[in-house]
Amino acid sequence: MTNLGYVPEEAIAAIATPLSPGAIGIVRTSGKGCVDLISGIFSRPKSLREAAGNTLVHGWILDDGKKIDEVMLGVYRSPKSFTGEDMVEIFCHGGTAVVSSIFSLLLKKGFRTAQKGEFTFRSYINGKTDLTRAEAVREIIESKTDTSRNHAAGRLAGNLFDEISGIKKLIVDTLAAIEVEIEYPEDEETIADSFDRSNLIQAKERLGSLVSSWKSERLFQDGVRVVLCGKTNAGKSSLFNALLKEDRAIVSDIEGTTRDYLESWASFDGIPARIFDTAGLRTTDDAIEAEGVERTKDLSGDADLILYLADSTVGLQAEDIDFIRDVKNTPLVLVWNKCDSENHDTLPPHGYMEEMGISSAVEISAKKGYGIGELCAAVKSLLVKSEDDNRNQTGLGSERQKKSVEEALERVDHALFASESDFALDAVVQDLEDSLDSLGEVTGEVTPDDILESIFSHFCVGK
Amino acid sequence: MTNLGYVPEEAIAAIATPLSPGAIGIVRTSGKGCVDLISGIFSRPKSLREAAGNTLVHGWILDDGKKIDEVMLGVYRSPKSFTGEDMVEIFCHGGTAVVSSIFSLLLKKGFRTAQKGEFTFRSYINGKTDLTRAEAVREIIESKTDTSRNHAAGRLAGNLFDEISGIKKLIVDTLAAIEVEIEYPEDEETIADSFDRSNLIQAKERLGSLVSSWKSERLFQDGVRVVLCGKTNAGKSSLFNALLKEDRAIVSDIEGTTRDYLESWASFDGIPARIFDTAGLRTTDDAIEAEGVERTKDLSGDADLILYLADSTVGLQAEDIDFIRDVKNTPLVLVWNKCDSENHDTLPPHGYMEEMGISSAVEISAKKGYGIGELCAAVKSLLVKSEDDNRNQTGLGSERQKKSVEEALERVDHALFASESDFALDAVVQDLEDSLDSLGEVTGEVTPDDILESIFSHFCVGK
Repeated sequence: MTNLGYVPEEAIAAIATPLSPGAIGIVRTSGKGCVDLISGIFSRPKSLREAAGNTLVHGWILDDGKKIDEVMLGVYRSPKSFTGEDMVEIFCHGGTAVVSSIFSLLLKKGFRTAQKGEFTFRSYINGKTDLTRAEAVREIIESKTDTSRNHAAGRLAGNLFDEISGIKKLIVDTLAAIEVEIEYPEDEETIADSFDRSNLIQAKERLGSLVSSWKSERLFQDGVRVVLCGKTNAGKSSLFNALLKEDRAIVSDIEGTTRDYLESWASFDGIPARIFDTAGLRTTDDAIEAEGVERTKDLSGDADLILYLADSTVGLQAEDIDFIRDVKNTPLVLVWNKCDSENHDTLPPHGYMEEMGISSAVEISAKKGYGIGELCAAVKSLLVKSEDDNRNQTGLGSERQKKSVEEALERVDHALFASESDFALDAVVQDLEDSLDSLGEVTGEVTPDDILESIFSHFCVGK
Repeated sequence: MTNLGYVPEEAIAAIATPLSPGAIGIVRTSGKGCVDLISGIFSRPKSLREAAGNTLVHGWILDDGKKIDEVMLGVYRSPKSFTGEDMVEIFCHGGTAVVSSIFSLLLKKGFRTAQKGEFTFRSYINGKTDLTRAEAVREIIESKTDTSRNHAAGRLAGNLFDEISGIKKLIVDTLAAIEVEIEYPEDEETIADSFDRSNLIQAKERLGSLVSSWKSERLFQDGVRVVLCGKTNAGKSSLFNALLKEDRAIVSDIEGTTRDYLESWASFDGIPARIFDTAGLRTTDDAIEAEGVERTKDLSGDADLILYLADSTVGLQAEDIDFIRDVKNTPLVLVWNKCDSENHDTLPPHGYMEEMGISSAVEISAKKGYGIGELCAAVKSLLVKSEDDNRNQTGLGSERQKKSVEEALERVDHALFASESDFALDAVVQDLEDSLDSLGEVTGEVTPDDILESIFSHFCVGK
């Protein structure tokens, strides 16, 4: 594994909490001698050295006798730890200066800065986890909605590992039957007659279901780009607030937002969405600013979906119609707002909307919160095909996994084809062994170094 | 304490790490029944219930049997915990969705959201800490440089508490002597003759030293505004990078920075500084953009210090001179950059610079890192008077503390005056008792509810 740049057992340290003010900060360490190294900068070295695994020790971090911070140390003894090695987690006060001081001190005392994902990598090479679970750690940290967290937690709990193992068993059983066939051929019948394909057919179906799971999984992980359009008085900010209430997703303004548009995260039935609120469509003197329209069009071009908000008490106006007609190749939902008002118009006729290219239309009252659930469902159904949504919980968690599962599927498919043709059993055996190798890559039993490197380099430091 | 809105012992919960992706997140709980409540959503309830204090328990957080996240629980048993109550800290994966899910689940299961500072408040009312240490918790979290962290850590370790206690002892000893005097008056001499003032004189000196410490302490806590000016080719970004290397301060761009200027934190010998890098002074076609100059002037008006960067290979130009002469009432340091170059000019004559209003001038090479230490020292000496800097480490940590110490100082001063005049001993006694009350407010022995509320409401949630 040395070509990964990871040297197992070396004492490593990383800051494991975001470097901004918070109540508690964590500096994480692992590796040979980490307990002794930290004893050298701890006010109660004897208590720490003698601490049993899974205990918490109170004291001060000292730099040449000078008190740096009052801390709790979480002590773990090999092999009962996340990495499988001795570990000490330093729970300190959460200020940026404190956390960095302690971290710098550790580096001075012999720790090396952990590389991205190095803690999880050690967990993997020490047999504490397989690759599907290891990747789920990253997924769970990056998950933006309850749904994506939920799927990742499933993989962390091992449901993808179990599914892959189940499929492998089907293939291994088939291989075993073939071996018997090769060693003790009963007669000279062709493979086509003697061969029991049922296990392989089941394996193929389950592999196919995993491959197709990735499309919506990726949607839940990466999220979609939704552009919110409409004139200023259509009620965009009310809609935005109503969306936030609908789902427990974390919604926050994104840093670096330019003046042209606001960008935030929200969630549509668990699909995380980057919402671009186009300030540019603001009306000035009742005419939509030309420059604003241009900017909005640029944004809309990259969008996965456009929400076009219109005021139902006014109806569609020339500017609305022009804008909607101009949208090409992007699903557009007409959001018919202010339907709580007594004098609101009904939606335009179905045929008219279809002709304009509106994919879906929903009546809501952003202010009263009516119709928001329906809006979320409409958005979701445009983004996720229903069959993807109804599949069982086991799904793939990364592009890498999908590639390997696709390879396995291809080999199993080919084995089935070969078994129906006049190929020798040896060819079928080769296909099935290849498919097992591919599945081994998913869980990490058979995984080249470059794949490992690419997996762990996407982690954050401290994991 | 109920008018503070805090109900002690109630089970409270708070997210104790920043809500942004990080390796580990912490949800903190405290109060009666918190171990039992969490047992109800934990995969190994028996292990948790039976866990001794200061131990770590591994398992899953469950919501109706559904796995939310794999966690470690830090278990603390009353009174051996931060708050003095039973506590459970949930160490989960650091994603925003995970941390919020667990927190929401806790609220559903009977926890109440902790108010700001409520954990530390409980620590205080349960006698685990005094107010100077409690306030130091907030200071340490908010500290931006090693120096401010260091001062706060001193107070957290109790050095302010010890200093206040020492001063109180001087006053109490004097009071005791006076009581003897009152009960057993030896003769009819005036107070002025019989009274030993030495303890009070010492108390006055030490209180005065504490009061004067606040000026520079506040500087270290709150930081200063430094505006970086100069033409684009003067080397502003090199200087910025050089400053970052000089100090271990956390430097990061500040969110919400507008296009008019960049804003970052850096540190000058431990004084945290918000540095405004005025993009506006960029030269266009060799003429300084008028609008940029205006903006820079606006910024400079609010600044505590201006660093004016000039290219020593070119010397001061008309635009530089105009800009510098225009600055009023703000210390300006001329930073004479590129002094590593063979053909650099020497600094302008001392009298000329003085006439221009330049407070200090330093020759540097931002690129090579020469002179950066001298620059930091020059900045610091303009901001902090040397006597403040050389005082011993014990200093005040908040405006509140300063106010109470000032009151105590005033009373002690008055007692000394009274003892030298013809006042009755009773008046001196009253003064000294008042001064003890004021000092009691600093440490929290005598502290009205409104002061407590104001102290703890400035904490972050989770502390």
